[in-house]
Amino acid sequence: MEQVPGALGTSASLALRLGQIIFSSASLLFMCLEVELFSYTSFSYLVTVMGLVTPWSLSLALVDAYSVFIKCLPRQPRVLLIVIVGDWALSFLSLAAACSTASVTSLLVNAGTSYCPSRLCSRSQFSATMAFLSWSLSFASTLFNLWLLPSL
Amino acid sequence: MEQVPGALGTSASLALRLGQIIFSSASLLFMCLEVELFSYTSFSYLVTVMGLVTPWSLSLALVDAYSVFIKCLPRQPRVLLIVIVGDWALSFLSLAAACSTASVTSLLVNAGTSYCPSRLCSRSQFSATMAFLSWSLSFASTLFNLWLLPSL
Repeated sequence: MEQVPGALGTSASLALRLGQIIFSSASLLFMCLEVELFSYTSFSYLVTVMGLVTPWSLSLALVDAYSVFIKCLPRQPRVLLIVIVGDWALSFLSLAAACSTASVTSLLVNAGTSYCPSRLCSRSQFSATMAFLSWSLSFASTLFNLWLLPSL
Repeated sequence: MEQVPGALGTSASLALRLGQIIFSSASLLFMCLEVELFSYTSFSYLVTVMGLVTPWSLSLALVDAYSVFIKCLPRQPRVLLIVIVGDWALSFLSLAAACSTASVTSLLVNAGTSYCPSRLCSRSQFSATMAFLSWSLSFASTLFNLWLLPSL
């Protein structure tokens, strides 16, 4: 079987998934620490999306780890298609959430400290950055898996 | 040569490009009519991105129209790759711009009419909707062209 680095079941894919877990959970954590931020729709949306990305990446990381360290699993086109579609949808949702959070934070920072204390705003900026990083890794996973699909 | 509906040089692609031109120029027009809106970063970003999408779609629509009505042009993998990468980048930028505009508008609407008179806000909502529609068509073009690429 052809080995595409980064495709499902390889060590590069495991590294990508671990990066996604770290970035998405960091984004979730920094946003969830401030309950005041939930009054903004975009911030709640980011929390929802990152709450979907973290378990998805975690479960695929477990599959990769099993495949790398214990026994190489056979690749089925149907499973790969589900993984690609899921990654694709989640990468779009993460990009949308990161952009919304970034733009709302930028607006609040410009509006002054009465709307957004500096501690809160720096947290939501950090959270948006982590969401962007999580998006880029999730998009890389989609591309690598998509590359493998025609060969199956 | 294989004919994928929606790939470069077909009538379906021409229809997609025309839709992109209509939606992106509508988005641009509704945003540009209000000079007051340019004080917000997200709205200026939307105008910039839509100002890139409109000429890109227009030039590819001309190529498609030439190919459909006058003479079928030979498909070159290098040209197709440039079209795919351009569409891909512009579709991501449009999605980001549409999400930013939508979230900032939603925030301004919730903040009350003193920040956003209803006429202004309904215009930016309309503009964001048009940008979303333009993104979906642009993404469809990317997918159809990507499907054709391995066969060349």
